[in-house]
Amino acid sequence: MSARQHLQLEDDFAMQGGMLNRPTLAYETWGELNTLGDNAILLFTGLSPSAHAASSPMDPSAGWWEDMIGRDKPIDTHRYFVICINSLGSCFGSTGPASVNPATGTLYRLDFPVLTVEDIANSAIAVLDHLNVQQVNTVVGASMGGMTALSFALMHPSRCHRLVSISSGSRSQPYAIALRSLQREIIRTDPLWQQGRYPVDQHGPVDGMRLARKLGMISYRSAEEWQARFGRERSSDSPDTDNLFGINFEVESYLQNHAERFIGAFDANCYLYLSRAMDLFDAADHGGSLAASFAHLSLEAALVVGVKSDALFPLHQQVELAEAMQPFVPDTRMCALDSIQGHDSFLVDMDRFRPTIADFF
Amino acid sequence: MSARQHLQLEDDFAMQGGMLNRPTLAYETWGELNTLGDNAILLFTGLSPSAHAASSPMDPSAGWWEDMIGRDKPIDTHRYFVICINSLGSCFGSTGPASVNPATGTLYRLDFPVLTVEDIANSAIAVLDHLNVQQVNTVVGASMGGMTALSFALMHPSRCHRLVSISSGSRSQPYAIALRSLQREIIRTDPLWQQGRYPVDQHGPVDGMRLARKLGMISYRSAEEWQARFGRERSSDSPDTDNLFGINFEVESYLQNHAERFIGAFDANCYLYLSRAMDLFDAADHGGSLAASFAHLSLEAALVVGVKSDALFPLHQQVELAEAMQPFVPDTRMCALDSIQGHDSFLVDMDRFRPTIADFF
Repeated sequence: MSARQHLQLEDDFAMQGGMLNRPTLAYETWGELNTLGDNAILLFTGLSPSAHAASSPMDPSAGWWEDMIGRDKPIDTHRYFVICINSLGSCFGSTGPASVNPATGTLYRLDFPVLTVEDIANSAIAVLDHLNVQQVNTVVGASMGGMTALSFALMHPSRCHRLVSISSGSRSQPYAIALRSLQREIIRTDPLWQQGRYPVDQHGPVDGMRLARKLGMISYRSAEEWQARFGRERSSDSPDTDNLFGINFEVESYLQNHAERFIGAFDANCYLYLSRAMDLFDAADHGGSLAASFAHLSLEAALVVGVKSDALFPLHQQVELAEAMQPFVPDTRMCALDSIQGHDSFLVDMDRFRPTIADFF
Repeated sequence: MSARQHLQLEDDFAMQGGMLNRPTLAYETWGELNTLGDNAILLFTGLSPSAHAASSPMDPSAGWWEDMIGRDKPIDTHRYFVICINSLGSCFGSTGPASVNPATGTLYRLDFPVLTVEDIANSAIAVLDHLNVQQVNTVVGASMGGMTALSFALMHPSRCHRLVSISSGSRSQPYAIALRSLQREIIRTDPLWQQGRYPVDQHGPVDGMRLARKLGMISYRSAEEWQARFGRERSSDSPDTDNLFGINFEVESYLQNHAERFIGAFDANCYLYLSRAMDLFDAADHGGSLAASFAHLSLEAALVVGVKSDALFPLHQQVELAEAMQPFVPDTRMCALDSIQGHDSFLVDMDRFRPTIADFF
């Protein structure tokens, strides 16, 4: 059973690229809002997760940050009221390109307005209002979620006290844009994408999604991790001409298994929109420069966490973010972790991430 | 006019994966073999170049290592007789999957035997014999060419004095295997690949080749270079929904331009075979371990060059190679360069590479 809740907005929602007809936002919560209303934590996700960040009595299945959120965990739901929102534009309950446009009765597909990280951040306000949260204790996000959290803090300074940005940055660097651009082109090149008009009752561009996911995995992990984990181990005998291009090395088998789990679970058009939203984000757009933008912040504290093996959001981006916030946020902390699992470390290297997050909260 | 020469072998050629019916090898030479016959330099290429490494009176067009080879250049053709061979399995004059099998009169395509780096190295012997070169002064290679050069030195210790290995290693690491595996899968997924049976008079899987080349470029360069070169510069106005997934950032335009130049210039099946050959290479296979393999070497000197920003053959692989050779090669030198252009630095950062190579020669 799902613990997912849905809020349909009473009004149309102004995205940066156009109006959206009364969108729905899906979210989950853990813990309780206290009487002072000052213990809410707002969690934005990376590109692909749902709002199911952790298990609960209503949905005991493990969430994507299961080790981090719960009773006696680093984000302790005895103390905090945790809200995780499925990003606007995604496909796990919130309105996105795979949703029906109430105005026309048909799927948005590529008629969905251009999506920005700022739109995702702004859409959270309705959920906070609905839950009677005037000001969140801490807005938290990793990867794209870190951009969204920063965007929220920039646009709604009165609505949050503190910020935690993990394996993210103040903008997308060209190397990351290139990787995502290629993932999108791979999907769009699949004939089954059909210019975004693939039938909803089928899986759409499954080849494109499989290949894009493999490229994602390559960019999310690290060479060092795979050297230690797979080396040159084989998953099948040495190739002959019949299987020369099939799966021979363990690392090829690993990529295949990960990609197969992703196919069918994520809508291709939603993926394209969210991916492009990351490219477009630049915190400097909020003021003309990072310094001018960050002068808008009204945070008491910020924690910026990065990982040395991250190729997608390299450590110097977290250093840049922390240094740019430091003049405007009294208690700015920067934490560089030695994890070898690359960008995905916040999901898997819990031995390093748990104490780092617990220490802040 | 081409300076390319062709040598058709008088006998069948034993590849590790099967016999090849009297293959042809294409090569170019610069300079003259001296009377002692001790001034030959044998150059193996990376995955995609032809034998045209440098211009000559017969072919004044610039070669792929134009700045390195020629009169008064680091590899000085006043002094040295330079031979560059188009790899067996490639498509620039040497026999490969795009060639006609003389036994059947049809194209090899996927009937070509499994190709290994060792096969490429072994095929050079016929060219050396033809040119009356008993022992090469130095065998040189970068990237895949470095693997081929090492393989040559391991299998034919009496045929070479010295080795130069650039941005290469003693084996493929799983991260590089993953990248190449994905490139191959992208090509094979293109419906126009037709299981390798695309018509020769058409371009074959052009979409797959374009996407694979873009992934190649991402793995050949570095995030640092692109940050300095492109930043977040736009090549077109901010996207609206009509062009949301098109080319908007300069880095996307750069990848597109590079990929377009590659399409049609390289045969898809040849690419697949050469790419897999790199995955399969492990110098430890020549003895059971690197040390046992390198005990076969009979080199006087070796130069191993690597670049700090190389993601495909990271610097620790060059260090590993140099350290493993050091007990068996009296004069082993290791040189780590600060180039920011990643794996491709040996082709573009000539200000650092020229003196490094000149110093050795």
